[in-house]
Amino acid sequence: MKAVKKIAIVGGTGYTGVELLRLLARHPDVEVCAITSRSEAGRQVSEIYPSLRGEFDLAFSEPTNDVLGAADLVFFATPNGVAMKQAQALLEAGAKVIDLAADFRFDDVDEWSKWYGMEHACADLMREATYGLPEVNKAAVQEARLVANPGCYPTAVQIGLLPLLEKGMIDTQHIIADCKSGVSGAGRGAAVGSLLCEAGDSFKAYGVPGHRHLPEIKERLSVAAGETVGLTFVPHLTPMIRGIHATIYAQVDAGFDLQTAQAAFEARYADQPFVDVMPLGSHPETRSVRGSNICRVALHQPQGENTLVILSAIDNLVKGAAGQAVHNMNLMLGLQETAGLDIMPLSP
Amino acid sequence: MKAVKKIAIVGGTGYTGVELLRLLARHPDVEVCAITSRSEAGRQVSEIYPSLRGEFDLAFSEPTNDVLGAADLVFFATPNGVAMKQAQALLEAGAKVIDLAADFRFDDVDEWSKWYGMEHACADLMREATYGLPEVNKAAVQEARLVANPGCYPTAVQIGLLPLLEKGMIDTQHIIADCKSGVSGAGRGAAVGSLLCEAGDSFKAYGVPGHRHLPEIKERLSVAAGETVGLTFVPHLTPMIRGIHATIYAQVDAGFDLQTAQAAFEARYADQPFVDVMPLGSHPETRSVRGSNICRVALHQPQGENTLVILSAIDNLVKGAAGQAVHNMNLMLGLQETAGLDIMPLSP
Amino acid sequence: MKAVKKIAIVGGTGYTGVELLRLLARHPDVEVCAITSRSEAGRQVSEIYPSLRGEFDLAFSEPTNDVLGAADLVFFATPNGVAMKQAQALLEAGAKVIDLAADFRFDDVDEWSKWYGMEHACADLMREATYGLPEVNKAAVQEARLVANPGCYPTAVQIGLLPLLEKGMIDTQHIIADCKSGVSGAGRGAAVGSLLCEAGDSFKAYGVPGHRHLPEIKERLSVAAGETVGLTFVPHLTPMIRGIHATIYAQVDAGFDLQTAQAAFEARYADQPFVDVMPLGSHPETRSVRGSNICRVALHQPQGENTLVILSAIDNLVKGAAGQAVHNMNLMLGLQETAGLDIMPLSP
Amino acid sequence: MKAVKKIAIVGGTGYTGVELLRLLARHPDVEVCAITSRSEAGRQVSEIYPSLRGEFDLAFSEPTNDVLGAADLVFFATPNGVAMKQAQALLEAGAKVIDLAADFRFDDVDEWSKWYGMEHACADLMREATYGLPEVNKAAVQEARLVANPGCYPTAVQIGLLPLLEKGMIDTQHIIADCKSGVSGAGRGAAVGSLLCEAGDSFKAYGVPGHRHLPEIKERLSVAAGETVGLTFVPHLTPMIRGIHATIYAQVDAGFDLQTAQAAFEARYADQPFVDVMPLGSHPETRSVRGSNICRVALHQPQGENTLVILSAIDNLVKGAAGQAVHNMNLMLGLQETAGLDIMPLSP
Repeated sequence: MKAVKKIAIVGGTGYTGVELLRLLARHPDVEVCAITSRSEAGRQVSEIYPSLRGEFDLAFSEPTNDVLGAADLVFFATPNGVAMKQAQALLEAGAKVIDLAADFRFDDVDEWSKWYGMEHACADLMREATYGLPEVNKAAVQEARLVANPGCYPTAVQIGLLPLLEKGMIDTQHIIADCKSGVSGAGRGAAVGSLLCEAGDSFKAYGVPGHRHLPEIKERLSVAAGETVGLTFVPHLTPMIRGIHATIYAQVDAGFDLQTAQAAFEARYADQPFVDVMPLGSHPETRSVRGSNICRVALHQPQGENTLVILSAIDNLVKGAAGQAVHNMNLMLGLQETAGLDIMPLSP
Repeated sequence: MKAVKKIAIVGGTGYTGVELLRLLARHPDVEVCAITSRSEAGRQVSEIYPSLRGEFDLAFSEPTNDVLGAADLVFFATPNGVAMKQAQALLEAGAKVIDLAADFRFDDVDEWSKWYGMEHACADLMREATYGLPEVNKAAVQEARLVANPGCYPTAVQIGLLPLLEKGMIDTQHIIADCKSGVSGAGRGAAVGSLLCEAGDSFKAYGVPGHRHLPEIKERLSVAAGETVGLTFVPHLTPMIRGIHATIYAQVDAGFDLQTAQAAFEARYADQPFVDVMPLGSHPETRSVRGSNICRVALHQPQGENTLVILSAIDNLVKGAAGQAVHNMNLMLGLQETAGLDIMPLSP
Repeated sequence: MKAVKKIAIVGGTGYTGVELLRLLARHPDVEVCAITSRSEAGRQVSEIYPSLRGEFDLAFSEPTNDVLGAADLVFFATPNGVAMKQAQALLEAGAKVIDLAADFRFDDVDEWSKWYGMEHACADLMREATYGLPEVNKAAVQEARLVANPGCYPTAVQIGLLPLLEKGMIDTQHIIADCKSGVSGAGRGAAVGSLLCEAGDSFKAYGVPGHRHLPEIKERLSVAAGETVGLTFVPHLTPMIRGIHATIYAQVDAGFDLQTAQAAFEARYADQPFVDVMPLGSHPETRSVRGSNICRVALHQPQGENTLVILSAIDNLVKGAAGQAVHNMNLMLGLQETAGLDIMPLSP
Repeated sequence: MKAVKKIAIVGGTGYTGVELLRLLARHPDVEVCAITSRSEAGRQVSEIYPSLRGEFDLAFSEPTNDVLGAADLVFFATPNGVAMKQAQALLEAGAKVIDLAADFRFDDVDEWSKWYGMEHACADLMREATYGLPEVNKAAVQEARLVANPGCYPTAVQIGLLPLLEKGMIDTQHIIADCKSGVSGAGRGAAVGSLLCEAGDSFKAYGVPGHRHLPEIKERLSVAAGETVGLTFVPHLTPMIRGIHATIYAQVDAGFDLQTAQAAFEARYADQPFVDVMPLGSHPETRSVRGSNICRVALHQPQGENTLVILSAIDNLVKGAAGQAVHNMNLMLGLQETAGLDIMPLSP
């Protein structure tokens, strides 16, 4: 009989925190031993999240190294800049660490500081950390003690482009990623822009001059392409709760064959349990992945011309955050890859 | 090793049909052997419901007695008036039957004809059928071969009133049930009133002169009370997908004690796995049960006066339809009561 | 030629503030000369509200008595407790005042303090203030220099009950007002509960133990009835932006005649430009009044029994706040009653 | 005193029909003398559209040439293929005609037949018709007796590109228009895909292989550019009622100057009352134009690289349909250009 692994969550009051709790509540091989929140310390989890009533007999606690270091694995579901201050101590105590924020996503510390507006607290760990997109780095994640969980937009965009870049099938210099996110991507913080009356029944672009996910996407696509890619990334806010839809445009030359590209997608993701390559001409809806860890992708070449259109849909809180983190956890702890993640999408 | 039970679904293109598929896809003890739809016969289930891609290698078929009668249990997820025409033949073939529509919910055939506007095709079976609210009829359901799955509004209202009526704690003649439903309650039929642009960002009452769930609620409450109750039932359409919230008003006299009522609720539902009696003063949100089979109830006595307020929230497609049907199936087939239904609510 | 009146708005960054600006932008007889906000002083109005671009060449300013006192009329679109501190000075300077918050809505200062949790700063003015429901107090408003604009729930409920109470047609001791509000009723403050991901696609009751609008409604209904009424008031949060729907239940005796009641409503509101008594059996939708100052009401007597159901729908930001305030302004300044308010509802 | 013009609407039960009624109800110079609907003939307009109660004492009638020909101007708010069958007769009777559908939008009859799947009933009129985008064809519209009202997507995209194409500032061969529409764009027809439970809380692309607005956009942009443009057009369905947001990508060369482009936009639209060129770096929201005839546009050049991003937002039912039609009507009838269209956006 396998021993149950002990899991701790730092910063459990946000949407990625509660989503981790939802997933781990039904995970067969792990137990949540601690969930921390400075502001809510002492309160029962189910008071803040009635959807968890009866599932966890657990109160929020202070994020001390003692408590956290005793876990087999610690998730940081915290704002940017938190995990980098505590990760070293926890690793030394023997816990593995997954950061769902951006602290370890970059290779370049200076680039990170420029986009995140603060000094990085541990450049060494940033270099050590593994970028946890299992569709790219599965083997490395299995060996890692520190994993940077990818951003939501970067996940959707990379899965839509990896086969093309790896095979050199598109122009790498004129990639456009027009991305649309549900409002939960902005987190559970009390911000005017995320109010139902501000974000509801309306649509807008934001961060067009430069969004923090731009350098992350660009760096990872460049690794896949073997050269620095040219990328325009425009995020939009959509009046829905969950979901990201990426509409990706790439230029192809006369020799491009759509069937070959489709075959490349199917081969590339054949062994990836959470990527669904849809038939040519499909239009994935975000609700078809709601609550699940699946990414659905579909290819189009409108009018057979030289612009390829790739559609990619995920649930930003699952494949774009907590679900991918659990996937990484499974890999890091030697559990079955899909454990706890065989969840049916909720539709309608 | 237990044999896997074979399940058939008649009328699988509506919301209750796809919801049955979502639940049964992860049920450990059953297998869906047939799903029928006259209009979609021959098409793969996953074409119509992309959320089910990879889950069912199943095409819609014609609802013949041969195919259906071979199942251990047949769900009718059809409009009113369909199950009553085919149930007899399937029962004779040895299948058990659960109707998610209204064909077998009443005891009185004439009353049924009045509200549903058609002759009933098999009065005998209506009398035989068991009303499948497990919180009332668990033992009878376990023995039944034909179960009438309760309506969504009736489920929410009954759970909010049963302990009070059974104990004689309220005035039975002045009950008001002010109920609010998400739009999925109207089904997947192409009706103007259910369009996003008609039902979205708006709120209205409907059917105030008389809704078909009124006689069902009244009959069942009267059984619980041991006398004919007086009930005003007003349904409303809320701009959301899933969820029913019942706000129930009952008159109490000077001897009423709120703590005693709370204790009665807790005792009444202590062994019911899908009813959550919340602490006094709670306000259940429909999203706290989204996608799950749970009913959350809470009691209030505003300003200590003589009007008791009971709040009851369910997911209309789960506890109000497909989930309750699976619960009944488990009971009828001798499976574990909660099998396939230990689903975490999706929140946010 | 009539002189244009000068209008000032205190606290213009909230929803009632911007709604006043929307209405006054097209008002033929007034000009907004100042709009104040401590937090946004110096910023252009159109920066915060792009929907007003090109309409107002106006920056937020500090709410000094000098600026405000020079106006013909000052609106307070501020939180509770602000207007009561500044109203006296402005009245002395010759400006008329309308408070859209609750500072002057009660007659009883102690009752106010109990519900609003603070000492009242000017009890004298509370006694002087006129309660600005034009359907009740039109003549008094025309003479008033200080008007308390009614709450949104109180407006919808009063219009639904006034004819019945004034004519003594219902039992005054068992009134139930089950009310549903869009999220804009909670204001533009950054509160977690008003986030799209918290309030969206969900429904809940709130404040069941006691909401601040309860004493306001109760006091005004009691005035209409000529005796203290018994009222249960339950507000609910609906996932939409604007709109209040009140479902009101009243007990009637055997002598009650529905046609007579309908006639009483039609007569009572015949000269009220903003009340639409719909035909018997109608179901008003909130979207049918979206953006307009209209209240639509409809009567039902389900199954002819002794519970009367009154449905009342308003736009909470217009008839429930800014529109009613402009109506009061028109009356106080001797303008045409409907000036600036002949706005078509936006539907869909 | 100017005589009031008589206006008829054919096909008044859809969203563009009721939107025309909303706008014309407050238009100072016109009167709606007839509104037709075969399916609803005889019913009062306000029965179907309660938002219009008290505004029109008008019943739906049959669309006979007698009734319609007596009008000064007839709007066709009908499906594609209707106006082309009746326009000739009405023009001969002396009425002017505006078709809000696609019957007269193309120059090329064969192209039209290919995209709309039917023979064209009057090729001559197609050639005569003026394309009613006032920002391009104001003078021609003033002289026209038959105007083709532009599609909603084409309106948003053209306004975002005209200054650039006319001045030759962008690469004409690699234009991408990623467009997002509210669900009202699909009309009021009872279609499963437009149900709240299908289109709500979800996002998807549709028609990627080829949407009917593609040839319309391409033809008009080519006219502006003076050469055939290369265009990829991807429409998306957004879970909101009204609004179109176009995110347009164009390639620019090293000599491109963003300030010059901004100045070109400001100059191009200086005399156009319904185009708002926002400051550089702005992000227009669809709600900032909700219910109004305004198009807001903003320019971005992310990271100063060679992809220009233009954001364009309209209300699809107003500037994208009924509002633009009224604008054209004003021009055709010699009325003030903005008459009836000075409507404040409804926000929130």
